[in-house]
Formats: sequence, structure tokens, C-alpha cells
Amino acid sequence: MDSGAGSNLLRALGGEAVWPPPLWLMRQAGRYLPEYRAVRAKAGDFISLCTTPGLAAEVTLQPLRRFGFDAAILFSDILILPWALGHGLAFKEGEGPVLPKLRDMTGLGALDPGRLPGAIAPVLDTVRRVRAGLAAEGHDAALIGFAGAPFTVACYMVEGGGSKDFAATRRMAYAQPELFDSLVGLLTDATIIYLSAQAEAGAQALMLFDSWAGVLAPSLFCRHVTGPAARIAAALRARFPDVRLIGFPRLAGAMLGEYAAAAGMDAVGLDTATSPAHARRVVPEQIAVQGNLDPMALLAGGEALRAETGGILSAMRGRPFVFNLGHGIDPATPPEHVGALVEMVRAA
Amino acid sequence: MDSGAGSNLLRALGGEAVWPPPLWLMRQAGRYLPEYRAVRAKAGDFISLCTTPGLAAEVTLQPLRRFGFDAAILFSDILILPWALGHGLAFKEGEGPVLPKLRDMTGLGALDPGRLPGAIAPVLDTVRRVRAGLAAEGHDAALIGFAGAPFTVACYMVEGGGSKDFAATRRMAYAQPELFDSLVGLLTDATIIYLSAQAEAGAQALMLFDSWAGVLAPSLFCRHVTGPAARIAAALRARFPDVRLIGFPRLAGAMLGEYAAAAGMDAVGLDTATSPAHARRVVPEQIAVQGNLDPMALLAGGEALRAETGGILSAMRGRPFVFNLGHGIDPATPPEHVGALVEMVRAA
Repeated sequence: MDSGAGSNLLRALGGEAVWPPPLWLMRQAGRYLPEYRAVRAKAGDFISLCTTPGLAAEVTLQPLRRFGFDAAILFSDILILPWALGHGLAFKEGEGPVLPKLRDMTGLGALDPGRLPGAIAPVLDTVRRVRAGLAAEGHDAALIGFAGAPFTVACYMVEGGGSKDFAATRRMAYAQPELFDSLVGLLTDATIIYLSAQAEAGAQALMLFDSWAGVLAPSLFCRHVTGPAARIAAALRARFPDVRLIGFPRLAGAMLGEYAAAAGMDAVGLDTATSPAHARRVVPEQIAVQGNLDPMALLAGGEALRAETGGILSAMRGRPFVFNLGHGIDPATPPEHVGALVEMVRAA
Repeated sequence: MDSGAGSNLLRALGGEAVWPPPLWLMRQAGRYLPEYRAVRAKAGDFISLCTTPGLAAEVTLQPLRRFGFDAAILFSDILILPWALGHGLAFKEGEGPVLPKLRDMTGLGALDPGRLPGAIAPVLDTVRRVRAGLAAEGHDAALIGFAGAPFTVACYMVEGGGSKDFAATRRMAYAQPELFDSLVGLLTDATIIYLSAQAEAGAQALMLFDSWAGVLAPSLFCRHVTGPAARIAAALRARFPDVRLIGFPRLAGAMLGEYAAAAGMDAVGLDTATSPAHARRVVPEQIAVQGNLDPMALLAGGEALRAETGGILSAMRGRPFVFNLGHGIDPATPPEHVGALVEMVRAA
């Protein structure tokens, strides 16, 4: 058992029913904070912010100073991995990410794992700086590293950006299974390298974000979500037995229990739609769950925030649990609502 | 038990394990058919197509002539109901629906249920024409009428169109519960009137499409999805005991079982993400299920289509079941893939 800084989070992820539960928020370093917007304004584009260690470490630490969360999460983006493999990436204001569309073996062949070590070096520098900053500033928080899961990263690469339902990706998975399997396989290998490097640089937990897992039919979910997660978890566990692993198969719905049982993670993230009571029923009890307040309830504040937070806390009391949102915090959220939430969870 | 035209569908929806299962496809009247595109081209705008009974009835019947489906579904749109209440609506090519944004009590007060009977008259004329056409052309198919569920219709009215996650709608549900409850309540009343009129005009089954049910956290799901569905089902059942009711809480995930048990529908639709084995486990066995081939597997055809279809059929054999897609057919689908699917299901 870890009794150093960040131990509340690490103990909960390790299967202990820590109470009150440790707490952090997805996208806690973000536009709802004026101090983030100030750094963002001087960073130039979004990729520069992710790959300039001084700035990325600074915004990672900002929410800790305000709210004393139990975890810092590396400030980065799930699309930094394909970018590091040589796939193009740009963020257009108000439009989200824009990438070349990978649609054939030529596109796949252009990806270059040899670029990875050099391209991810600034991210690893950020990890080291945040670890040092947490200690220097005396925060009792663990550092979480992360990557996009292979399927979700493949979604953006195939579609060339976001999509309502990632139809071209699903079509490729059905119609060109060799191509899609190869893409997911290559991304799985790269993710293992990327997350291993984050663990070596000092990340104490690693989270795998499969934001679009829920668009898949069950057969493809097992093949492209649970399978790669299990391969990644096994590889990381063999090398870093003390690093805790969190899988987040967003929108997995009724597949959550199967994912939790088969993916080999220490914890699973719950999206906003998942009933905490259902999660408690289907996730094996030694596996921690993390979630799942609706960011719109946090934005609304007041009675809705109290009722939703209270419901989650009472459903999760007595099992390994980490309080979080079920999706990233909304940029319009008043910081004082976050303060109120922290008070409520600490008083649980 | 009904032994007339369309009896296969009605028997399955009534709880009988008809085999091979009856079959129809969501958006079976649509752009993948050249004969649909020909009618669409002369209709002017999309609302005109929905409200010109001669044209709407013609496109409703077209897929029956090609494929001999077990059901015709009224050609219309879920946003015809708010349009009939006086809320603005336009369809922009390639953009989807555009509506005024309903954000306050003034917007709510502008809705006029008094307009409903006159505005929906052409839709009811279409229902009568399709019923007559099915008999005249000798199709052994039941006629399904439909409406958007109150929550999903409210989503489009609040956002002013489609959205990735309907954040403004969820925010309103948390922050202005009286306003949002009133909107959903008004739409529930209007939906009962609208679907009752379709039943009187000859619809033999009625489907309630809650396309965005899955964006809601569990407490809101019970309040705005299951609750209104139960009220609609009870009102329709009291007046039309022989009309079969299908609820489709899309993306309901782990809430599917609760919806099936509480909504009072004869059948529930399954989206593409739902495992048929899971549905079989959580949906009470006297309630039929309908679904849920991924439209991208139908578009891909070949081995993927065979494998996915075979998996669904073998999971559903022996329980009341209607074969369908898990989402609307994609406009790029080759009609011959639909023919191959019909053959496979008929040979089950």
C-alpha cells in the first residue's frame, strides 16, 4: 500500500474503499479556469501548448492549487499519439481536430513508429516536471498519464476528425477487416510504448480513453475495444506492477461488465449515462469504478448538483471508487460550482 | 390473434415467437432507392414530401414492392409534430433540421396545440392511403405509424437542430426543471393525440422513437424517457387495445431492462450497440425485441453481413422478435445488399 503523496487515489484504484472517495475531474485543466485561458492565449496553437513542457506542466498544476484534487492529469490530447506517428493534425478554432483521412494501406504504411521516441519527448518532460511540481508545491495528489485507446484514435484518423457516429470507421471495420485490424494493432503497439514511457517518466496511474467505444456493435466492441485494452493492460502490468490502470470505454452501456471483467484494468470509468447502481452490479467488486457526474449538472449547480452528487455518493459508498465527472468539464462551468462539489465530496 | 395481412409482424409484437422472424428496416423508404430519389426530386422540400399524401404514400409503399417486408412504416419525420404545434422547421441540404431555439417560457407559450388537428390532417390522409394501397397491391404487411418521443423532440427544439451531446437540453433539464418538465409534458400530451389519430386512421402498430434517450443521466432518463413513454403507452392501450406499441430508447445501454419493464410497450427496439444476448437477458420475455443489425454491416455486405445477421438470428430464435436494423439504413447502401439480407432472414 502506498502511503506517500497521492495515496488516496492509488489506494482506491488498488481496490480499497477509501472514504470520502478521492476526487478529480476530467479536463480539470481547461477553459473554465481564467488562469488556464491566460496560458492558452500565449501558447500559440493547441499542439504547441501540449508539447511545450513548461506551459503544459503549468496548466496541469493549476487546478490542484485551486481545488486540492487527489490527482493531476497530464495536460495533453489523445491525438498527440497519431501526430507523433507522423499523421497530420491541426486544431481549428470551434471545429475541433482536423486530420488527413486514413482510408487504405498506403495511409497505414505512412505511419512511422520510428518517429515516436523523438516526438513524445516533450510530453515525457511534462510528466517529469509535473511530478516535481506536485512535490515542490506540496500537493497530496497522484499523477495520471493517459492515451486515447486504439479504436478511438483510429476513429479520428479514418474520419479525418470528429463525427456523429463514425460511420466510415465502422464501415471499414466491416468491409476491410485486414486494414482496420492492422491499424488498431499498430496503434495498440504504439500505445504500449507511449504509456510505458509515461510510467517511466513518473506517471503513477495511466488512463486509456476510449471515447467512442459505444458506437460499435458488440462483436466489433470485443475485437477493437476490449481486446486492445487487455493487450495494453497486460503489457503495462508486466513492466510496471505498481502503476494503476484505468480504462474508460465511454458509452459502453451494457458492455461495461464484460469490459471490466476482460480488459484487465484496475478501474473502469463510467460515462454520464451509466447508472451507479448498475455499475456496482456488473463491475467485479475488486475493480474500482470512477465517475460519473453529468458535467451539465455541475454547470447548473444548486439543487441539481446536490441531488446528482448525493445519488452517486450513496450508491458508491463501501466500494473502491473515485469521484469524477462522466465526461469532460464544460468550459462555461463557474469555478465556484467546482468548489462546492469538492466540499460536498469531502464531506461525504 | 390477427390472421389477416401483416399478421406476422403483429403476432411477433403481440408476444409470439414467430419464425422466421418478421422483417422491416428503419428508413426503408429512403435515398438508397432510385425510385425514392425520383419522387423526392419532384416533391420540392422535405416537409412538402412528408405532407403531400400522394407522394408520402407512394414512397412508403416503394420498399414493399421491391422486398416484401412485413411492415410498411409511414413516411414522415419526428419533427412534424413540433412543426404542427407551430414551432418553425426547415431542412437544409446536408445540414439536417434547423429550428428556432426554445429556451424560455415565452417559447413554450408560443406552442399551439389548437393547430394540431389541422396540421396533421395530411399525415392521417397518408396513413389511410397506405392502408388502402397495401390491400390493393396485395402486400402481406402491417402499417406502422410513429412519432418522436417527447424528450428527443424537445432536444431538437431546445438546441435548434441536431447536436453531438444535446448539452443545452441537459443543462435546461437540470437548471430549469419547471420549464423542461412543462415542455416534455406538453409534447407528451400532443404525442398521445397524434398517435391516437394515426391509430384511428388505420395504423396497426405505433413506434415511439427516442433517438437521443442515451444522452441522459439515469435520474433524467427515468423522468423524461421512461415516464413519458409509460404515459403514452397507457393512454394508447386504453383506447386502442389491438394496436401494438414499440418503444425505441436509442443508446439506452444498461437502462434498457428498466425501460422495457416500466414503459408498458409491447416491444422495444435495440440500437446497434446492444448485444442481443444482453437484450434477451434483461427484456421480460413476453415483450418483443426489434433490431439490431448495424447499417454499416448492411452497407459492407458480404461476409460481415452474413456473420452479423447470423449472430442476431441465433441469439433471438425462440423469443418474440422482429428483425430490423439498429439505426436507419445508410443512403449509400446497395439495394442488392438489402435483397440478400431479406433472403437470409427468410431462410432462418
